[in-house]
This record gives sequence, structure tokens and C-alpha cells, in this order.
Amino acid sequence: MQLLDVAAADFAARFDALVNARREADADVADAVRAIIARVRDEGDAALKDLTARFDKHDLDATGWRVEAAEMDAALAGLAPDLRAALELAADRIAAYHASQRPQDRDETDAAGVRLGARWNAVDAAGLYVPGGRAAYPSSVLMNAIPAKVAGVERIVIVTPTPGGEINPLVLAAAKIAGVSEVWRIGGAQAIAALAYGTERIAPVDVIVGPGNAWVAEAKRQLYGVVGIDMVAGPSEIVVVADGKNDPEWIAADLLSQAEHDPTSQSILFTDDDCFSGQVATAIERQIPLLGTSAVARESWDANGAIITVQSLEAAMPLVNRLAPEHLQLAVDDPDALFAKVRHAGSVFMGRMTPEAVGDYVAGPNHVLPTGRRARFSSGLSVLDFMKRTSFLALDRASLNAIGPAAVALANAEGLPAHANSVANRLGNGPANQGD
Amino acid sequence: MQLLDVAAADFAARFDALVNARREADADVADAVRAIIARVRDEGDAALKDLTARFDKHDLDATGWRVEAAEMDAALAGLAPDLRAALELAADRIAAYHASQRPQDRDETDAAGVRLGARWNAVDAAGLYVPGGRAAYPSSVLMNAIPAKVAGVERIVIVTPTPGGEINPLVLAAAKIAGVSEVWRIGGAQAIAALAYGTERIAPVDVIVGPGNAWVAEAKRQLYGVVGIDMVAGPSEIVVVADGKNDPEWIAADLLSQAEHDPTSQSILFTDDDCFSGQVATAIERQIPLLGTSAVARESWDANGAIITVQSLEAAMPLVNRLAPEHLQLAVDDPDALFAKVRHAGSVFMGRMTPEAVGDYVAGPNHVLPTGRRARFSSGLSVLDFMKRTSFLALDRASLNAIGPAAVALANAEGLPAHANSVANRLGNGPANQGD
Repeated sequence: MQLLDVAAADFAARFDALVNARREADADVADAVRAIIARVRDEGDAALKDLTARFDKHDLDATGWRVEAAEMDAALAGLAPDLRAALELAADRIAAYHASQRPQDRDETDAAGVRLGARWNAVDAAGLYVPGGRAAYPSSVLMNAIPAKVAGVERIVIVTPTPGGEINPLVLAAAKIAGVSEVWRIGGAQAIAALAYGTERIAPVDVIVGPGNAWVAEAKRQLYGVVGIDMVAGPSEIVVVADGKNDPEWIAADLLSQAEHDPTSQSILFTDDDCFSGQVATAIERQIPLLGTSAVARESWDANGAIITVQSLEAAMPLVNRLAPEHLQLAVDDPDALFAKVRHAGSVFMGRMTPEAVGDYVAGPNHVLPTGRRARFSSGLSVLDFMKRTSFLALDRASLNAIGPAAVALANAEGLPAHANSVANRLGNGPANQGD
Repeated sequence: MQLLDVAAADFAARFDALVNARREADADVADAVRAIIARVRDEGDAALKDLTARFDKHDLDATGWRVEAAEMDAALAGLAPDLRAALELAADRIAAYHASQRPQDRDETDAAGVRLGARWNAVDAAGLYVPGGRAAYPSSVLMNAIPAKVAGVERIVIVTPTPGGEINPLVLAAAKIAGVSEVWRIGGAQAIAALAYGTERIAPVDVIVGPGNAWVAEAKRQLYGVVGIDMVAGPSEIVVVADGKNDPEWIAADLLSQAEHDPTSQSILFTDDDCFSGQVATAIERQIPLLGTSAVARESWDANGAIITVQSLEAAMPLVNRLAPEHLQLAVDDPDALFAKVRHAGSVFMGRMTPEAVGDYVAGPNHVLPTGRRARFSSGLSVLDFMKRTSFLALDRASLNAIGPAAVALANAEGLPAHANSVANRLGNGPANQGD
């Protein structure tokens, strides 16, 4: 953990280093991924069977390619009642929040008599990657699948690696609650390729979302354009802006809730109170050994944690904007005053009673958020990621006569005579059966 | 040009081939682009100077790195009055259409007492690539720069290759009209790298848009995640759905307005009238030799053109959706009835008096649209490409007590104890100074 003080002579240099630090390793898997994609495209299911045997150590013909409906029903039925209620509360709140994201269609006629507008449609099919192992979170299934459902996507497909054939029942229960019935036991770059191009068994999709390892991320990048994809995801991060009136134990737990995700996660505290910064650092040291995730939290906090002392919390906000954090907690009495100065952040958690973790699960907004300073230019996952807009125009003779000559002039200036003809043909007083 | 008839025995196979035909050549420039990006990142302006000398054959120190304000003023002053008026009409209409795309912020409190919402901000800086040579269109400058301006982007930067130092004055005039004052004489992958990472002279941007050759497209793909980018653009295309009551000369010109763009462009006519299909084919043959762009139009129409005879235009719509065309013209008396069946298209041009070309220039909606069936999952360029959304949450003690226990249950189920602590600490009746 680093301690920085905005008044120190070396602050600017140290803060620059913090902003520019790259916590993501560049895995050099591009060529290997390219080869996997080509095989799946050419050989379809045969390639999936072979690659799954090699990487996930099971035979798809033996374990089953697709998870049976009975297995999903059993997973849901086997949930402890409080967990089932929690997942259902989360699903309802996520659906309610995302329903308000559905965009409005437009259809209007302007002063020139030109009718113009835009209409939104859902994509036909969406694929959701669910990682195996440490990151197989049922909450992520809800956060990725429900916006697609709310958008109106008719077919939602989950792919997930099941090493040795084993699958997390919590993931299946969450899929069932989210209304997803098509789940395939495949993972890695081969699963992304199967979703993009389709195979004999698996129909292709239009958009692929969800987190994954370096192979999955590289496969999505290479297939971007063949399908739509969500933003590249990196290690998660939190910035907490807190005055000295907070309980240091609370803020310590908030910082550790990011640190426990992964050794590359990052937790940063800005405070205007020297005494408080020491109390939080002490509380963190006391809490870490008590966590079941202590090894990960330790490594993350030591390597990437920071406490930054500032002269005022307002003055911290330009620094926060440079970090453009995924999560930003404003633990003060008047968070709106600070929020007004936020330009770049994935999601903001306002006030002392809004820990980031409540947003990870049940609050409603999406927890798939831009990391690694990408909040400068991108947004959390939303209904819009599963929809697309078709613009439209309708002119009549009068409106074409009004604006068409300008189009003819520009087409000629650009050296495109058929463009000019296409408009010019219709100008003036044409035959009575055309367009009146 | 191919003639297809929906009633023919081989129709399904031939239509599949048309849908799956790839008109984009895979240029194998990935390694070369990776090397260029690394050089610009490491060496900055020195790399730009060297690469510009090699590819664009001019010395940036001699021709000037940045276009002077006086040169932009002179370009605008030198425009013919009708062209200037046409560009200004186009700019006004584009700005008006895009202004309605500005998204609404949300801030509401739900039944559980949770305040939640979302706020939109523009990115700080956007870069626009303007190709040299054949595709240096002033209309594209307006279509890319104005949405950024409407979004509220404070810094908009154009990069454009100027082979031999020459720059198209129409492009400079359009930039001036669009309110862009920062124009650099650099192009290719090196220009994209400079925008993404910044150099000594050029500050980095957050989003890069605009068309380009295979090197530019590959550089954008590789830098996706470092910056935001617009959709990969491929060869342009039009589908015209027309009954026999249209003037075949008009429809021929409409089809040729795509064919003249590039040999890889595609123009497809669906009609329910055999006689009309022959008349259009004949009109196209008559018009091609008269075009200044005849060589390109000839090559495109011969290689990629198609006329498809269907039994009814309604029955054509599922076929159109499979093509998911960039441009779709519905040249019929009641285009709304057909439009109701459109699920996948970039932009739709309704009725006999709405040639696609009027949308390329002056109508208002954007002409940067998804190609190559990408309208299945993506949209035309819009104000949203230059903005991002920050979600937010604010809970008080009562609302956290209402939904917090579910978050604790899920965090424990996912094996994330610090997440659980972060919420559990605040449940119940805590100290009076916290969050009430």
C-alpha cells in the first residue's frame, strides 16, 4: 500500500504513476486464439469436442453438450430459501432498473416537411460467457442476462467451461431465474468462436457479453465486427472519498471488498483527515487475517492499494476524474456536492450508508462497469448493448425540392455523379404518378 | 450482376451465398500495424515524422504538422457560394437531428427508498480520421464531427494523410463549418496510435471515429480498450425494395449511387414485377457509361449487384432482414407497412421521393452506418458514441436494512466475505452519527 499526500513535493509524479500503472498483464495469446477460432469456424462441433477434452478435461459426448432442463430445475430447487429469495430480489430490482433504460423511438416531421426518426429493435440472439472457477458468480449471470431479457432478446445463450464436467449449481439457478434455458458446457476462445460463427449444434448469436480470462477477451476482440461485444474488462477497482466522520472499520471493509476480488484489483482512499487515514490503514491490517479471502486481499492491498491525503475532498475530485474509477464511493454528508464534480466514473455510491457491495448484488444498476480508466469513454452494461437503432427518412416532392439541390451540389463536389442523378431525377415537377 | 427468382429451385442456396459472401478482403496487416503502434507509443513525434516521410512522402517539419488557422479560413472563403450554402444547410440539419439523441439523465427514489439513477457526460476529447484520396468526403467530416459537438465534446481533433503535403480544401472547409480547429497532417495506423497514446505535440483523445483503409481499421481494432472506437466499417451497400410503379431510371440511379462508391460496394433490388426488373437492368446498362465513375460502378455492379424477383414485397422482408443492409429504400406507396417488418437495417428511406443519396448529405440522420450485416447488432454513429453514462445509488439506513441482508447472503454464497462485511457492518441500528 502506498501513502500519498497531495502537499508532498513528489505528489504529482507519484500520482501520475498511479494513474498510468497497468495492472493487466499482456497475455500473448493472439496467435493461439486465432488458430482456435479458425478451427471452430472450419470444423464446428468436432473442434469443440477436441478442444474441450484438451483444456477442460472432459468428453462432451459423455458429460453432455448442453445442460438439461432437469439439471437447471434441480439447481433452483436445491437452493437454500434465503439464497433463492436473495437472487429473486436481485433479479426483480435489476429488471426494474434496466426497464427504464429502454430507449424511445422517434418519428417527427420537421419545418422543411421532412419526416425523420429512429426505431430501436433488440438483437435476435445474445451469448453470455460465464467463467468457471473463482469468477463463476451467480450475480454476474443476472447482471448480464437480465438486460438482454429486458431489451427483448428472444434467444439468450450461456456458455461456460465445466472442468471435469462439473458445473456450479448457483450459476444454473441464476440462469433459471433470469429466464435463460440454453446453457452449453463449453468455454474458452472456442466457446466465443462457436457463438460467433455457429456450429452444427449451436446457432450463432449477434452479441457476446460477459467476463473471461485472457483467451476469452482476445477471442472477443478478434471477433468484434463479426458479432457485437461488450467492453474489454480488466481488474476491478474502487475509489473511496471519505471524511473523518466515517467509521474506519466500515471504510476498511469497503476497500477490502475490491481487494479480495483478485490480486490485480485496486482500492484507493482519498481523505482530508490524517488521523482517519491511519485508522483505516490499521483497521485493514486487523481485518485482512480474518477474511477467507485474506491471501488475495493481502496481495492486492500491498501491491495496488493507496491512501491519499488531500487538503479538501472537493480538491480530490479532479484527481478522481483522472483515475476514472469503475466504482466511486462518496462517504460524506453531502455527496451530491462532490458528485456534481464527477465527470468520469462507472458507478457512484453516495453517502455513508451506500457501500459499493450493495450495488454488486441487489440495488439494481449493473455491476458490469468500465475498468482501467475506460469510464473516460465507456459505460456500464445496459439494455442498449442488446439493441440497435434504425434511422429513417421520408421526403415528399416539396421537401425534396427544398433540400435536394444542396445534396446534388455536394454529390457533384465529391465526384459522385450517380448520387447526384439519384436526387436530381426527382427534382422539379415529375410525372404525376410519382411520389405525390 | 445476378438475377435471382424466389420461385426458382436453387433460390435458397443462391440467396444464402449472397448473404454470406464476404466482400471485404482480409488484409494481413496485423503485425505491421502492431509494430507501428509500438513505435509511436515509444518514440512519439519522431516516429510520426519518419512514418509520414515513408508512407505519405512529405517532411512534416517542412509542410507543417498542424494545419494553420489561416489555411482553414482560406479554404472556407474559397468555396463556391452554392457549395458553402449546401454544407451549411447540411451542418444545420445534422445538428438538429442529432440534438434529439441527447440522452436523459435519471434520478429517482423507488418503493424501497433507494435513490438510483444515471447521469451522462461527454468524453473529454474525440479524434476523427479523415482518409486521403478517393474517400476524402467533406460530408463525412460533418457526419463524424457534428455528433461529437452536439454531445458536448470540448476537443475534437482531425487527423488526415496529406500525400505530398496536399490537403483537400473541401475537407478543411467542412471542418471549419463543423467547428473543428485542430487538424493534423498525419494518417495511417500511426495517426490512430498518436491519437490513442498522445505524443509530444498531440494530446491523446478518448474516442476515435471515422473511416479508413485496412491499416487504419486494424489500428483501431488493436487500440480498442485504450480508447473507444466506432464500429468497423466495410464496403457500403443498398437494398431497394420497389414495385413496378417506379420509374426504372430513378431506381437504376439509386442502385448505381452505391455501386459508384467502390468496386466492393453492393446494390440489390427486390421487386415483385418481372417486367420492371428488366427495365431497371436495361437502365443501369444505359447509365453506367455516362458516369464519371463508370469504371468503379461497372465493376461493383457486375461483381456484387443483384436483382431478386419475389412474389410479394411483404414476402421479401424476411430476406431483407437476413441481409441486414446498411441502406434500405422502400419505393412503394405505403412504405410504413413494409417498415413495420424491418428488424435489421442501418437506415431506411421511405417512399418514392426519398433516394438514399439525400440521406448521405443533407437530411440529418447520420450516414455512418453499420455494413456487412452488422445492422443485426449495431447502429449508426450518434451522439451516444461520444458520451458515457455514470450510474449512481444512494441508500439510507432504512433502505439498506430492507435490501442489504440479501446482498450479505449472496456475497457469502459467492465466497466474498469482505463484500458481506461491508454491507453487514451498516445493518441494524448503528451509531447515531452514521447515515441518519
